[in-house]
Amino acid sequence: MKIAILPGDGIGPEIMDEAVKVLQALGEGIEMERAEVGGAGYAAHGHPLPQATLQLARQADAVLFGAVGDYRYDTLERALRPEQAILGLRRELGLFANLRPAILYPELAGASTLKPEVVSGLDILIIRELTGDIYFGKPRGVRTCPDGPFAGQREGFDTMRYADGEIRRIAHVAFQAARKRGRRVTSVDKANVLETFQFWRDVVTEVHADYPDVELEHMYVDNAAMQLVRAPKKFDVIVTGNMFGDILSDAAAMLTGSIGMLPSASLDASGKGLYEPSHGSAPDIAGQGVANPLATILSAAMMLRYSFGLAEQATRIEDAVKRVLAQGLRTPDIHEPGTRRVGTSDMGDAVVAAL
Amino acid sequence: MKIAILPGDGIGPEIMDEAVKVLQALGEGIEMERAEVGGAGYAAHGHPLPQATLQLARQADAVLFGAVGDYRYDTLERALRPEQAILGLRRELGLFANLRPAILYPELAGASTLKPEVVSGLDILIIRELTGDIYFGKPRGVRTCPDGPFAGQREGFDTMRYADGEIRRIAHVAFQAARKRGRRVTSVDKANVLETFQFWRDVVTEVHADYPDVELEHMYVDNAAMQLVRAPKKFDVIVTGNMFGDILSDAAAMLTGSIGMLPSASLDASGKGLYEPSHGSAPDIAGQGVANPLATILSAAMMLRYSFGLAEQATRIEDAVKRVLAQGLRTPDIHEPGTRRVGTSDMGDAVVAAL
Ligand SMILES: CC(C)[C@H](C(=O)O)[C@@H](O)C(=O)O
Ligand SMILES: CC(C)[C@H](C(=O)O)[C@@H](O)C(=O)O
Repeated sequence: MKIAILPGDGIGPEIMDEAVKVLQALGEGIEMERAEVGGAGYAAHGHPLPQATLQLARQADAVLFGAVGDYRYDTLERALRPEQAILGLRRELGLFANLRPAILYPELAGASTLKPEVVSGLDILIIRELTGDIYFGKPRGVRTCPDGPFAGQREGFDTMRYADGEIRRIAHVAFQAARKRGRRVTSVDKANVLETFQFWRDVVTEVHADYPDVELEHMYVDNAAMQLVRAPKKFDVIVTGNMFGDILSDAAAMLTGSIGMLPSASLDASGKGLYEPSHGSAPDIAGQGVANPLATILSAAMMLRYSFGLAEQATRIEDAVKRVLAQGLRTPDIHEPGTRRVGTSDMGDAVVAAL
Repeated sequence: MKIAILPGDGIGPEIMDEAVKVLQALGEGIEMERAEVGGAGYAAHGHPLPQATLQLARQADAVLFGAVGDYRYDTLERALRPEQAILGLRRELGLFANLRPAILYPELAGASTLKPEVVSGLDILIIRELTGDIYFGKPRGVRTCPDGPFAGQREGFDTMRYADGEIRRIAHVAFQAARKRGRRVTSVDKANVLETFQFWRDVVTEVHADYPDVELEHMYVDNAAMQLVRAPKKFDVIVTGNMFGDILSDAAAMLTGSIGMLPSASLDASGKGLYEPSHGSAPDIAGQGVANPLATILSAAMMLRYSFGLAEQATRIEDAVKRVLAQGLRTPDIHEPGTRRVGTSDMGDAVVAAL
């Protein structure tokens, strides 16, 4: 078992150190190798996804990813900006299935901006298609508008697209995940306006025939955004495209009020995956030792479960995190009166101790 | 002053009756003519936007629109479904600027699923571009995938696009609206991934040079969805494209917990507009006399202000609505213990009495 450790920028290195600590404490003999990515990749090798980093990620059995992005790199041309690293890894490694749980830990219920009765016990799994849609569709660019009332002007354009097989495989992931949970899938689309998503709806409906034991509901994306605010607990598994998933998974994460707690997995067809916290690189607090490492530690747990079949060890980590929360330890982002404020490495040490 | 009255489907006719009542009570001698639209248009003339309806809408100085959609029409082919009426009206009338206020009335603060301190006093104006983007871009359809790993399979596809002039005019609307409010504009895009929205960001930044007195901030759409949940009161005016606006404006409306209260305006370049409630046709409660007519009544007020320059009369209606809320009258959707439950027409009568 070999994993690529890609800490990245901002708080990435600090939170990664804690996840590595936890993995080492497990003593499963996992081999780890580090490489630069994002702004750090650009600084070291002139590209956010250096060749050596990509090669390491390809060879490894899984990738543990911190976060990318920093003010310093905001003015670079788009192809060199840190976020290209994550887009490149998804595409090059074929990581088409993004699993993002939005779970509210009972101890952190107060952190949500929603009323406790609306979110207590929240447990949604958002499954976002990650290598198709308007993210990678071609043609795209800036051109002269060919016709219509704006003919002759410059226009920006992109192509949204989903092929049959792309929809089919993510639908299977969703239905299979639902079987291990509440057996309900909400497929989110915009079939009333977009050809891509009318097609999406048709294919998801076809795949559903293989899963008569799972309930399928179709919902328009605007309505889904409303229902997430109105009654989020009604959802079990949500499956959607890359663009809608980007928006809805962040909204769902924010419902919990503690995005510093939420891991994510991005899987390929064989179960190889990239694991990363749902939050960003938070350059404003980088290097201060105050970042919350729990989302990264929980991402490592997801890695053990999905890529290495080590479900028991994954559960050990998850239980350790729960114990640490129950002990009242909190990094500043989730700190509340009556709990104990700790820093990044104290939090990591506490999880190791609780293992 | 002539207005086209398009009640539509579901609760549309009931709520429209109340808005008409209020307009008549004002006694401004506004001429009104009715026509069928949506499912009702299809039932009467075989098309959701019958020629006669479109012609009336063109001739009128403004359009007051109820809502469209009903289960009965769900199985029609897409081109005949009710929502094509609203898409057709937007396109045919050139209604490119959709103004959707998300306001929390102090009396209804309890209706929100968010904590009172997060939403009390909420007052956001979302300005959504309404005739461009992936809604109308071509080519679109279902074809054989030309290349890549899915070559040869069927794929659905759409084109996202924005021309320079389209972005420019909606940016002007946003900056001008901000001057009458908090002088802050948040332009929401996905410039880190989409060519269309990198171009959008560039053009909005250019237009901003004409408005040095207004603050401009750019925000990615996923972050905007999070900030709407986390700290919605930080926003003043949000301007965005058609697709992102569809999602964010519904999410913002739901923050208030009382979407039955929220009006909207869709304007063309000369100030002619279509006015409609932000909520849908709610076929499940149609015909029962329980629908909330206030969003439609407030849409009529927006019409007086934006299309007829009758700001004083618009304010009279808005004040009457506030008075009725202060009196404790509530339709079932906003009813709470300690307030008086009333039906659709009682609510309309109360607003007339409060004028
Ligand atoms: C950084 C950006 C390209 C990325 C995305 O849009 O997918 C991010 O928002 C995410 O969700 O991982
Ligand atoms: C009915 C549908 C086509 C429409 C849209 O997507 O614009 C609706 O959701 C809206 O926001 O008015």
